[in-house]
Amino acid sequence: MTEPTLLVLDTDPLPRLDRLSGRARVVHADEKSLVEHLPQADVLLVWDFLSDAVKQAWPGGGPRPRWVHTPSAGVDRLLPELAASPETVITNARGVFDQPIAEYVAGLTLALAKDFRGSWELQREHRWQHRETKRVGGTRGVVVGSGPIGRAIGRTLMALGVTVDLVGRTERTGDPEFGRVHGNDALGGLLGDADWIVCVAPLTEESRGMFDAAAFARMKPGAHFINVGRGQHVVEGDLVEALTSRRIAGAALDVFAEEPLPADSPLWEVPGLVISPHMSGDTIGWRDDLAEQFLDNFDRWEAGEPLLNVVDKGLGYVPST
Amino acid sequence: MTEPTLLVLDTDPLPRLDRLSGRARVVHADEKSLVEHLPQADVLLVWDFLSDAVKQAWPGGGPRPRWVHTPSAGVDRLLPELAASPETVITNARGVFDQPIAEYVAGLTLALAKDFRGSWELQREHRWQHRETKRVGGTRGVVVGSGPIGRAIGRTLMALGVTVDLVGRTERTGDPEFGRVHGNDALGGLLGDADWIVCVAPLTEESRGMFDAAAFARMKPGAHFINVGRGQHVVEGDLVEALTSRRIAGAALDVFAEEPLPADSPLWEVPGLVISPHMSGDTIGWRDDLAEQFLDNFDRWEAGEPLLNVVDKGLGYVPST
Repeated sequence: MTEPTLLVLDTDPLPRLDRLSGRARVVHADEKSLVEHLPQADVLLVWDFLSDAVKQAWPGGGPRPRWVHTPSAGVDRLLPELAASPETVITNARGVFDQPIAEYVAGLTLALAKDFRGSWELQREHRWQHRETKRVGGTRGVVVGSGPIGRAIGRTLMALGVTVDLVGRTERTGDPEFGRVHGNDALGGLLGDADWIVCVAPLTEESRGMFDAAAFARMKPGAHFINVGRGQHVVEGDLVEALTSRRIAGAALDVFAEEPLPADSPLWEVPGLVISPHMSGDTIGWRDDLAEQFLDNFDRWEAGEPLLNVVDKGLGYVPST
Repeated sequence: MTEPTLLVLDTDPLPRLDRLSGRARVVHADEKSLVEHLPQADVLLVWDFLSDAVKQAWPGGGPRPRWVHTPSAGVDRLLPELAASPETVITNARGVFDQPIAEYVAGLTLALAKDFRGSWELQREHRWQHRETKRVGGTRGVVVGSGPIGRAIGRTLMALGVTVDLVGRTERTGDPEFGRVHGNDALGGLLGDADWIVCVAPLTEESRGMFDAAAFARMKPGAHFINVGRGQHVVEGDLVEALTSRRIAGAALDVFAEEPLPADSPLWEVPGLVISPHMSGDTIGWRDDLAEQFLDNFDRWEAGEPLLNVVDKGLGYVPST
């Protein structure tokens, strides 16, 4: 039996690669050489999942790999282009980021409520300035995105005493943890009551730009907006306007329309805006976890078993069962 | 019937004072005039609970108030001096600070794990620098102080997936939430396994200086120390040494031996040390909550009913029932 060819988009060595020894021929490609290697690949691992190279190389000429895995939750850097190849299955990293991102969002929520950044700025100036801060318990949060990451965020906020409204693509009732999951069409009505608005939706044509001037206009003056989804969910200029006019109290962005955020971006200096470099899910050992998850799926693929975490290319995410 | 005299240590007006209208003669004193007003007072409300004036005026000459209330959890600014007057009952603000401080500590834990301060320092410099951060779920925490605040902290950390060891004065088993509550003598053995060490103990002669070089030497290099108890629990020079030598990974102090922390204190600049100005429990509306709590107890006092939250002057805190 011939070893299948695993094409890895990334020139660095993969963690845990010893598990494939004798089972696959591993070929590395960079963004430029990807297109020429694609016809020989049985499996494509998009290890550099922040690259747009796969989109650009697809469909190109010759046969395409039957399985493409991205070690990310979002598949917006593969779709809609890969939907043109119905024989190619896409899988993602569903699950790995749930708890890390939930912790990150809970931490941001508490840090914003307790004004930690204000304390740290005062510390720089050696200034002792007591302030009264907000309680998180008893507040309301809206989490936009009802996949496993959104659910983990909602659960963690509820554990802190926050009343959580979870918003997904379509409304459903009888959810064991959240009762009702609201549909996207209910979002406008929910924004006005929320102290915390968290975006963790998949990026689709429907969700692109959903946080715009109209959305910020519905929020309370005391509201905080947190984006751990994709930069393109937000009309960044509208958020800047909402913050500088104090339409809302603050925001934290971990994702941006352009990444890395350029040093001359005006976003760095917007008052009330906290910036972090797309790291909410990336805890120590995450690359090992992502590699293990892919390799577990490789075991299934090799054995002819159904793959886990198969993306619905029409929806743009792995549907909940 | 003569109205009783309520002496208030603070010259600012008290919130919710209308509740006492026609029921008490309210006299305000500052630190200097306290000693002369004390003999006329039936009740002393130590509204300025960061003052040491009561200790200094006690016992002084003449009769002492039969009831002294401090709107704080700690009574270390009243004891041991007031123990010399067995006819005087001390009550405190047990309960008001539980959830606010629990949120504050949970927020610090997450902020330290996720290196929010590092991100905010990079934001100041417009630098995009991805880092891997720690998970909080699956770590271990030791909470020193098993009163209601310590329990609330422990509960909140457990909700974030932290395994919590609660340490009180004496060991007890069968606790409905924590199983075993460890005695102080077990602390040394617990420190070596802890990722988070939280001090929220009452300040007594037994607990003064308990976090010293020997305690820091037992901690893991990755450990973080958080103090929301009293500054005097910590030998500050030993903590500075533990941080500058990277014996431990970091610390957050909300309380200090000297408050306000002087602008020329070396603590402001210690690497890995986060400073906040004794505000962990002080959420918006806290003064109203504290006043209401005192006034509820005043209702009981007036009716001849037993007071709530009576401090055991020997122990230095309100014993759990």
